[in-house]
This record gives sequence, structure tokens and C-alpha cells, in this order.
Amino acid sequence: MRQITAEPLTQPAFARFGDVLQADGDFRLINAGLCRRHHDLGRLDFGDARAGLSIFLAQPRALPCQLDLIECHPDGSQAFIPMTQHPFLIVVTAGPQATPRAFLSNGHQGINLLRGTWHGVLTPLADPGLFAVVDRIGATPNLLEHRYGDPWTVTA
Amino acid sequence: MRQITAEPLTQPAFARFGDVLQADGDFRLINAGLCRRHHDLGRLDFGDARAGLSIFLAQPRALPCQLDLIECHPDGSQAFIPMTQHPFLIVVTAGPQATPRAFLSNGHQGINLLRGTWHGVLTPLADPGLFAVVDRIGATPNLLEHRYGDPWTVTA
Repeated sequence: MRQITAEPLTQPAFARFGDVLQADGDFRLINAGLCRRHHDLGRLDFGDARAGLSIFLAQPRALPCQLDLIECHPDGSQAFIPMTQHPFLIVVTAGPQATPRAFLSNGHQGINLLRGTWHGVLTPLADPGLFAVVDRIGATPNLLEHRYGDPWTVTA
Repeated sequence: MRQITAEPLTQPAFARFGDVLQADGDFRLINAGLCRRHHDLGRLDFGDARAGLSIFLAQPRALPCQLDLIECHPDGSQAFIPMTQHPFLIVVTAGPQATPRAFLSNGHQGINLLRGTWHGVLTPLADPGLFAVVDRIGATPNLLEHRYGDPWTVTA
């Protein structure tokens, strides 16, 4: 059995796979000083198609959990914004043959996966597994899947 | 003193101002059946510019509250996705001279304001007032503001 351990989600560690969306670093004060705008945090890329906003409701899972399926959207970036303060699990990898990396959000973070990043399916760890998703709406399937013959186990 | 009362946020009531982003109605099952995708719920419009993803952290307020400022983004839509399960207040209006309408979300809803919709500033009702925002990133100021000479009071 192959095993990986989840690490804390930070921008430096995650940068090669995507962006961490959090209220950190520089901001502009807007709304008469009542609101901080952390501006334009995601490297969005929808190619020749358009951005769409969807809502995902996923079944929660518990750690340790098995990772048997990864997927990739070759034609666009994909952002996941939790609509709760529950941490969730993010698995990303350089490709089907590479060792995956697992990250655990801190309850105040979303992510944006760069176009073409191989990743595990959406994995909330608490109910409701409610997320807003910003991804490409276009004519192509925009989906590759890989199923591991020898699954990975992800531990906390 | 002028007063309005907040009503529940529903898609039919809100449709002329924007979209309610919630896990309701039709969906596609994805991720090997583990996730419902409520697809493409927002009428996004960024004109000739691009979509951006930002994080807003706003000071919470309590109801009743005073509405003295509204704003409008003439060049693009603007979506607000709460990153908590706290209800928030949404104020929209046909324009500076019209009577505003106030809506209260149910804790599982985001919104997308149509391009050009006059609205109150982001108003969380609990801490942290953390939201992801999908709006237009472009070269124009994309902001009109109106300050009421005779403010409105919004009650629950």
C-alpha cells in the first residue's frame, strides 16, 4: 500500500499547482474603509472559452482515505471556494506516474488549480461539502481521468 | 427616516438583479457519483475584459443597519460567495431614486449581481466577513457611487 501525508496548504508549497485564495498579504480598502479587497489572486485561464460559476455539493469523507482516481482539465483552470469554514483535502500531482501531494486547508482558504493540473476529486471532510467552482464553460470535454491500479492512502 | 425590511433571498425574487448561487434544482453527478454539479448558475459578463477572483474581508454589521451608500459596476457582473455559513445582507435597487430591496441569504447561498446593478456594499452579519468575489478585471474604474441624502434603515 502506498501512502502520503497531508501537509498544510500554503501558497509557496502549492504554487506550482495553483493559487491559494485567502485574505493574506496586500489589500485595497474599499467600501468606505469597511472592506479589504485582496485583489485578483487566481491565475484564471479559460483559453478561448468563457468563465462559469457553478455550485458543487460533494459527499464528505474522513481521513485516512483512499485515492484511486485523479483527473485533469487540459483546457482551463478550476477554482474551488468552500462555502463553509471546514478544512478540505486537496490532492495534486505532476502526473499519473508521480507521487501525489496532499494539502489540508485551514478553513479560510480556497484554491485555484492551474490549467492542466492533475488533481484528486473534490474532498470535503465535513458536511455540507458545499463549494463554488469557477471553471471553463466550453464545447470540449475538458476532462482526462486516471485510475490508479495501486491506490494511494492519504493520512492526516 | 425611510425604512425597508429584508426578505428571504430566492431566485425568483432576485432574478432582475442577479443570480442566486445555491445547490438547488438540476445537477450532474460527477466524481464517480460523489458530487453534484449545479452547472453554470451565474450570468457572468465581463465585457471586453477578463474575469478575476479576489477575496474580500468585510467588517460585520448588525441589523437594523443604515444604508447610506450604493454603488454600481457598469462594465461587469460581480459575484459574492460567502466562505462561511453565516447569512449576509444584500441590498439592491433599480437606481438611486428607486426604493431599495433588501434580501437575507440562508447561509448556503452566494449571489451574482448583473452588470450595472445598483447595490449596497458587502454586508456580512457575523465574523469573519469572508467572501470570494468574481468580477471584472479591466482598465476602466468600473465604479459609480451614490450617497443617499436621506439614508435608509434596513431591518430584519
